Amino acid sequence: MALIRSVFQDELDSVSQSLVDLCEKVSGTIQKATQSILTSDLKLAEEIIASDVTIDDFQHDLDARIIDIVARQQPVASDLRALATALRMSADLERMGDMAHHVAKITRLRHPDSAIPAELHPIFDALGKAAEKIAKKTALVIGTRNTDMALEIERDDDEIDDLHRQLISALVAPNWKHGVETAVDLTLLGRYYERYADHAVSVSRRVYFLVTGKFA
Amino acid sequence: MALIRSVFQDELDSVSQSLVDLCEKVSGTIQKATQSILTSDLKLAEEIIASDVTIDDFQHDLDARIIDIVARQQPVASDLRALATALRMSADLERMGDMAHHVAKITRLRHPDSAIPAELHPIFDALGKAAEKIAKKTALVIGTRNTDMALEIERDDDEIDDLHRQLISALVAPNWKHGVETAVDLTLLGRYYERYADHAVSVSRRVYFLVTGKFA
Repeated sequence: MALIRSVFQDELDSVSQSLVDLCEKVSGTIQKATQSILTSDLKLAEEIIASDVTIDDFQHDLDARIIDIVARQQPVASDLRALATALRMSADLERMGDMAHHVAKITRLRHPDSAIPAELHPIFDALGKAAEKIAKKTALVIGTRNTDMALEIERDDDEIDDLHRQLISALVAPNWKHGVETAVDLTLLGRYYERYADHAVSVSRRVYFLVTGKFA
Repeated sequence: MALIRSVFQDELDSVSQSLVDLCEKVSGTIQKATQSILTSDLKLAEEIIASDVTIDDFQHDLDARIIDIVARQQPVASDLRALATALRMSADLERMGDMAHHVAKITRLRHPDSAIPAELHPIFDALGKAAEKIAKKTALVIGTRNTDMALEIERDDDEIDDLHRQLISALVAPNWKHGVETAVDLTLLGRYYERYADHAVSVSRRVYFLVTGKFA
C-alpha cells in the first residue's frame, strides 16, 4: 500500500513538474514574441508561430496523463481536486502560449514595417519584461506552492494593467499621428499582453486556493 | 449494480443538461449585451454586468458536482474523459458569458453616447444575431450530440469571422471619420464577438470528438 501511494505521489509530482515546464516554455515564448515585434524579426516570428503546436501537444499529453492517473489511481476527493485544478492550469498556460503566438502573427503581418511606432517601444519593452517576469514567478509558484509569491503576482499584474492604460492613453491622445490601422494593431497587442498576465494570475490563484483553501 | 449504473447515468445526463442550461444562459446574455450596445441602454448593461456573477456561480457549482461524481462513482476511462470534457466545456461557456459582460461594460463606459457609429450598427446587429445563433445551436449540439450540427457550427463561425473582417476594413478605410477612441472600442468589441464564437466552436468540437473519437 505504501508503495502504491508513493507511485501516486511521484505521479502527482510529475504533473506539477510538467506544469512548471509548460509555464517556463510560455515565459520564453512571450520574451521571444516581444523581441520579434520590437525588432520586426520575421524569422523569429515564424519560429514562434511554428512552435505553438509543440505547446499545444505538450498540454494535450499532460491532460491525457492527468486523466489516466485519475482512471488508474481513483484518488480521494482532495487529490482529485488538485488534479482537476492541474487541468485548468494547463489550459491557462496553453492560452498564454496562444497570446505570444498572436503577438508574433502581428510581427509577421506588418513585416518589414514595425507594428509599433518608435515612441511606444519602451511601453512594449516594459510589457514584455513584465509578462516574462510574471510567467517566471508563476512557474516558481507552481513548483514551490509559495503563497506569498502567489500574492505578489497580483501586484505584478497591476503593473501590466498600468502599462496597458498608458498604452491606451497614448492611442486616444489628440496628438496621435500614426493612424487607425496602427491603433487597431496596438489595441490588440495590448489586449494580448493583458490576457497573458490574467492567465498567469489565474494559475497562481489556483495554487493559492489549493494550498490555503481560500481565495486570494 | 444495475441501479448504481442508472444513478450514475442520471448524474451524467444532469451534467449534460446543466451545460445546455449554461449555454442557453450565455446565449441570452450576448443577445441582451448586443441590444444594450446598439441602443446605449445603461439599465440593461448594468443588469448584464450584475448577472455575470450568477454565471460564474453556476459554473462553479457545476464543476464541483462533476468532481464529486468522479470521486463517488470512480468512472471507467471513457466516462472519465466525458467528465473531463464537461469541465472544459463549462470553462468555455463561462468565458462566453465574460465576453457578453465585456460588451456591456463598453455600453456603460460610453453611455449616454453610443460606442458604435450609426453606419456600423448593421454589422454589430449581424454579429449579435450570429453569436446568439451559434450559442443556441451549441446548446442543441450539447443536448443532442448531433455531429452534423456540430460541423455546421464551423460554418457559422466563418460568418462571424467575415463580419469581423468587414468591421476591421471599415475602421482602417481612408474615409474613417470617428477617431481613434471609437476605433479602439470597436476593435475590442469585434474581438469579444470573435472570441465568443470561438468558444462556442470549441464546445461543439469537444462534443464531436466525444461522439466520434475524431477531430472535426
